[in-house]
This record gives sequence, structure tokens and C-alpha cells, in this order.
Amino acid sequence: MAIASAQQEVIEKAKAARLAAREMGVLPTSAKDRALLAMAQALIGRQHFVLEANSADVRAARDAGLSEALIDRLLLSEKRIAGMAAGLREVAGLPDPVGEVIEGWRRPNGLQIFKVRVPLGVVGMIYESRPNVTVDAAGLCIKAGNAVILRGGSEALQSNVALVRVIAEAAHGAGVPKGALQLIETAERAAAQQLMRLNEHVDVLIPRGGEGLIRAVVDNATVPVIETGVGNCHVYVDEFADLEMAERIVINAKCQRPGVCNACETLLVHQAVAPEFLRGVGPLLVEQGVELRGCPRTREIVPGAHEATEQDWRTEYLDLILAVRVVDSFEQALAHIADYGTRHSEAIVTRDYERAQRFVELVDAAAVYVNASTRFTDGGEFGLGAEIGISTQKLHARGPMGLRELTTYKYIVRGAGQIRS
Amino acid sequence: MAIASAQQEVIEKAKAARLAAREMGVLPTSAKDRALLAMAQALIGRQHFVLEANSADVRAARDAGLSEALIDRLLLSEKRIAGMAAGLREVAGLPDPVGEVIEGWRRPNGLQIFKVRVPLGVVGMIYESRPNVTVDAAGLCIKAGNAVILRGGSEALQSNVALVRVIAEAAHGAGVPKGALQLIETAERAAAQQLMRLNEHVDVLIPRGGEGLIRAVVDNATVPVIETGVGNCHVYVDEFADLEMAERIVINAKCQRPGVCNACETLLVHQAVAPEFLRGVGPLLVEQGVELRGCPRTREIVPGAHEATEQDWRTEYLDLILAVRVVDSFEQALAHIADYGTRHSEAIVTRDYERAQRFVELVDAAAVYVNASTRFTDGGEFGLGAEIGISTQKLHARGPMGLRELTTYKYIVRGAGQIRS
Repeated sequence: MAIASAQQEVIEKAKAARLAAREMGVLPTSAKDRALLAMAQALIGRQHFVLEANSADVRAARDAGLSEALIDRLLLSEKRIAGMAAGLREVAGLPDPVGEVIEGWRRPNGLQIFKVRVPLGVVGMIYESRPNVTVDAAGLCIKAGNAVILRGGSEALQSNVALVRVIAEAAHGAGVPKGALQLIETAERAAAQQLMRLNEHVDVLIPRGGEGLIRAVVDNATVPVIETGVGNCHVYVDEFADLEMAERIVINAKCQRPGVCNACETLLVHQAVAPEFLRGVGPLLVEQGVELRGCPRTREIVPGAHEATEQDWRTEYLDLILAVRVVDSFEQALAHIADYGTRHSEAIVTRDYERAQRFVELVDAAAVYVNASTRFTDGGEFGLGAEIGISTQKLHARGPMGLRELTTYKYIVRGAGQIRS
Repeated sequence: MAIASAQQEVIEKAKAARLAAREMGVLPTSAKDRALLAMAQALIGRQHFVLEANSADVRAARDAGLSEALIDRLLLSEKRIAGMAAGLREVAGLPDPVGEVIEGWRRPNGLQIFKVRVPLGVVGMIYESRPNVTVDAAGLCIKAGNAVILRGGSEALQSNVALVRVIAEAAHGAGVPKGALQLIETAERAAAQQLMRLNEHVDVLIPRGGEGLIRAVVDNATVPVIETGVGNCHVYVDEFADLEMAERIVINAKCQRPGVCNACETLLVHQAVAPEFLRGVGPLLVEQGVELRGCPRTREIVPGAHEATEQDWRTEYLDLILAVRVVDSFEQALAHIADYGTRHSEAIVTRDYERAQRFVELVDAAAVYVNASTRFTDGGEFGLGAEIGISTQKLHARGPMGLRELTTYKYIVRGAGQIRS
């Protein structure tokens, strides 16, 4: 019964979202921006309602013995709510992607063809514990003219229910059709399973969270998925690197915010500069609290480093741990990245022109850097505005996904009675 | 054992394709074009070898009692081989999409960001009986810098083996890496199943064929899929239509080539013009051999029409059958298309400016037409060059997919030591 009613909830909400999406696609920019500003205002005005619901989630999480790190992700505060509201206002300020004529031309038979940017339609978001994703995703989807169905983590359910009540009411009051912003409120797994297979009503799924969540969505969905997030990123310090620059970049890429997908997880160092470079950077990293896990040559140079196993080359630590490998050659660095990388962000530090050129050509990743930290792979840092995630697949969108990546296009063809001969 | 060895064949070929894809991505345009021309020449030069293999397939198909329509799809001739070769030469003449700088800008911190078009990597094609798809797909994938793994229908296996031997040898001789062009040679279903779940080695799957094939791929694949093809297309004749123009368009959209996905399957007519229009067009369609299946109002006007059932509104006949419905209003036409359409190609015939505007805005389809036949949804007719299929999903590509749609992009970021603060 619980499963059947969970499935029923999803089907009904998805049908309502599909209907709302038809209206959303033609909603004027001014109405969408008004809705975003109203949502921001409502979040601030009704923050005590939201914080109370959040307290219940946090209490339940403590009772269930969740780790402090998880509880911190779940926790809302006045400051965090203000951050969400600021995010909505930022999205209101971004240009509307819908309606852009991407290209247009006339055919010899007089047909006029326009390739026009339109919303995706209904976006399904499946994510984990951070309640800010609820508000960020809602804001971006609405601005891009989509309806959105949100499915957050069960630990954050009360918070998400409160957040969606507040922002959906505000959005509707400002002219967004009912049904455009939906939260799946059952904690049953059957609900997520149903959402993943509703091809008739859902146009795309965007999972956001850990590797397990993303894998489960990719394995089970029949709705098209945009994979996000897993970043096993490398910095390769070439034999021709400026070693001081390399030091700054490695420390930044590893330590500036280790828990995110564009942080560096493995350092590759050319053997010609390994002794000098690792003797310098090793102690600096340890000073920052980084645990080093090295190949045998690394451990000769930095005796404090632990032994790296095959598993270390594959691991996205999301933590102050760094795998370190000394490579024989530029080619071995490329091969290591091809074998172990997740096609997220990869960097080379070099002063050699040809090495830089070959690295950006040959490395297959969403973002390939020369002489800069991998930490820049981010919608804001790229200048694209707020992002809904970072795609690590090749279909549709790659790297930071902002408003434009939440759209598709259609061809509009204007004729004067043309038929095909 | 057969299943295990089928899976093994797929894994080995996919690994080889992944390795070849790295080289393909940086292959110069001149080498790719030379390969395409060599493939064309080899097809002509070795056509007797191909025709002999095809005869074996055709004999087996006759023995198995396949329909003449299916045998015609399977059958090769000197003329058809010449057509394939001409297709390869046409692709050689198209511009290379790889390397295009789609956008580029400089950030305030001096980082230079380039969004550059790159190949998808490894493309898996799963298709049915037409052997020309083998050659067309190989040519397009190679020109776009991809490796391709082909999985054709079992009826065409001998033909495909011969075709791939001829074109792969020619391509390799012209500098295309071994492994870039692979055919799965086992008829085991397990091979296709394996191909659909090899996310590590395959970047995208493109199924081409009937609804059953496409549904099986969407349901079973974990590799991202581009859905192609199913077209339940409508022509809506508005109350303000030029009825002579409407007549030409309806007849063209239904009869010019009924077996293809952009042919019209349902005619919607506004009640205000239904008597006049249907009395005129009905007999003309019947004259062309079309069977009409109408709603009650249609059958009052055209007594010869059969009764349409709910199923008729949903059916892609791919045949000389046309469902006909008289609608009360423009809005009812929109609702019918939203409910039954497959988002392929939809047309309105009208002289009214606002109706035309609202139709192209509100109808959700890859191609939306005003006063032209749906039959133009085609890479060649759009001026995009040869196509690998027509996408009916919203992710990545919509409508005709040519060379550009067989690519993705990556961000190349050039710095001077920038770190994130």
C-alpha cells in the first residue's frame, strides 16, 4: 500500500508538472523574475517556520546517530537562509535563456528555419541532504522556464517540505502556475524509482550527491540523466614546470576546499623534478593537515607518506588526503589521467608550449587547465552564473551547468506552402 | 558459453574503440576526409564481395519467410552501393566540426576560457536491417572524430561483416587507427545488452529502428541514449487556412513517402472548415491509396472513412493510412498534439498571424511548421548535411542530428598561476 501510494503521489505530481510546464515555457521573463524575488522575500519573512522544521530534522538526525559532518550539511541558520535568498536574487538578475534564436537561415526553397532555445520541460532533481539544493534548483529551473520535481534526502524532509511550501506559495502568488514546483514528500524508495521511469512526464533527471546516489540513478533510470559531480581530479607537475607556481596550485587545488568535486585528489609529478618539488611541497601539505599516500618513489623522497594502493588512484577522497605518484614521462601522466580520471577537471603546470598544447588536446575532461588550479570549475568562477551541478558526462552539457544548460532547442520552420518533391 | 563469449567480444571491441577514440580526436581533417574517400572507393571496387555476402543474407531471409518489405530493406544492389559511396563522399565534403571554438572569454582574474568542440568519443549504434546504416554511421562518426561500435540486425549480419571489412580496411589504410570502426559480429542478444551497459568505454548510444528497438535500448541502457525516430506527426488545418495550400501540404505530408518518421499520421481539421476541406481532400487521398480512419464528424463528411479508435490517435502507421479528427477549436488541436504527439514534427496551416505565432510557441516538438509539409524534417532538407538520425528527446540534440550533434565540448582554461581564494 505504501509503495502504491508513493508511486501514485509521483505520477500525480509529474502529471501536474507536465501541465504546468506548458505554461512555464511561455511565461514572460518579468513574471519569472518577480517570482524569484518573491520567493527570496518569503524565505526571509518566514524563516522561523523553516528553521523550526529544520530543527525537527536535526533532532531526528542526532537521535539516529548521524555524523556531525552530515548534520552540518543538514543544518539551516538565518545566515544560510539569507544565502539561499541571495542566490534566488542573483538568478533573477541573470539573462533569460528562453527565446534566444541560436541560429537561423533560409533554404533555397524559401523555407525559413529558426533554431530557438526553449525550456527542457519537466526536470527531476534527486539529491541528498543539503536543503539549499531545494531552493537553488527551484530558482534555476523556474528561470529557465521549466517545471521541477524535487526529491531530496529523507533526513531533510521536514526542512524541504517547509522550504517548498514557502517558495511555492510565493512563486504562485507572483504568477508561476501551480504544479511548476513540486516536492515528493514520501520517503519510500519506490517514489524515486517511479520518478526515474516516468518518461512520459519527465524530460530529464539531474542527480546530485555522492557516487552511490548517482550510480543508482544511472542504473535505474529510463528518463535521460545528466550525471554530475564525481571528480577524481589530477594536477600534473611537468618537468618544465615553474615549481613555485606548481606549489601554489597544488596546495590550492587540494586544501582550499577539500570536500568539493573540483578539488585535486592525485598529484602526478615528472621524475625529473620530483625530488626537488616533493621535498618542498610535501611538508607544506602536511602542515595544512593533508595525509599523503605515495607511490614507492614518492615515499623515498617524502618518508612520511603512506603507501598508496591501486584503490587510491581511483578514489575521490573529498578530504585532506592526497595520492602522489612520480611518473616517468609526460605520456605516463596522460595515461594515468585517462585510466583513473573521471573527466571532471585536470591540470598541467608547465612552461613548455608544446606540452601545454598537447595536454589540452589529449586530455578528455570537462575542464582542462594549464597553469591554474582545478578549483575554478564552477559556474560562478567561469562567469556563467549560478549552477545546478557539474556534468561529468558528454551528452547535452559538460562542466558547470547553468541556466542555458537547463534548456533545449526546437526548430521553427516558416513556409509559404512548401511541399517536398 | 555463447553468452560469455558474446560479452567478451563486446568488451574487447569497446576497449579497442576507447583507445582508438583518443587518436581519432586529434586526427587532422585531411586524414579523415582521405579515409572517407578511400572507403567510398573501396566500396565500389569491392562491391561484388559485398553483394555476394548480401545474397547470402537475402537467401536466408527468404528461407526464414521474412516479408518482401523487410527483404527489400535488406537488399543491396550496385545502385545502392553507389548511393552509400556517394554518401561518404558527401560527408568528406562537409566542414569538420571538431576544434571549433564555440565561445571564449577572459575572466577578471586573467583566466582565459575556451569552449571547444570535441568528439563524443565512442558512439554505439544499435540498428535494424538496412545495411546502408552501417556505412552512413561509420562515415559520420569518423568525420566527427569518434570511434564507432556498430550492432546491426542479425538478418543483415553477412552484409554488415562484408561492408565493415571493406570500409575498415580502407579507413585504416588512410590513417584511421585500428579499432575506430568495429562491428559486433555475434547475433547473441547478450552482446547488445553488454554494449548498453558499458559506461566505461561507450559515451553514447544511438538506436535506429522501430519503436520496439528504441524502447528496448531506453529501458536497458545505462550508457546515455539519444532516442531517435518515432514520429506521430500531425497537420492541423486551421479555420483560417488557405484550403488549397492545406490540401497540397496534407497530401505531401502523408503520401510523398509514407514509411518515414516525418510523414503525417493524423490530420486535425477545424470544424469551421471541416466539411469543405474534407470533402475536397478525402477523395484525393483515397485516390492516392490512403485508408482514412476518422472521428464521427469526419465519417459524416467522408462516409468512406473507417472508424478511428483511441489507438489510431497513438499510432505511427508508416503506411498509407491517415487518422482524421475534426476539432472544435485551435485549443483542442493543441491539446490533441500535446496528448498524442511524439514531439517529432508538427504543422499548422493558417493565414492568421496570431494562430501561427501561438502554434510555434506552444507546440513542443523538434520541428514546428507553419504552412509547410512535415516531410522537411531531415538533415539534408534543413541544409545540415547527412544525418545519423532524428532525435525525439530533448537532451543534447533535437531533430536532425548531423556531424555537429556527434560532438560535445570541453572547456580549455589557460592561466598564469591563478589559484582560487
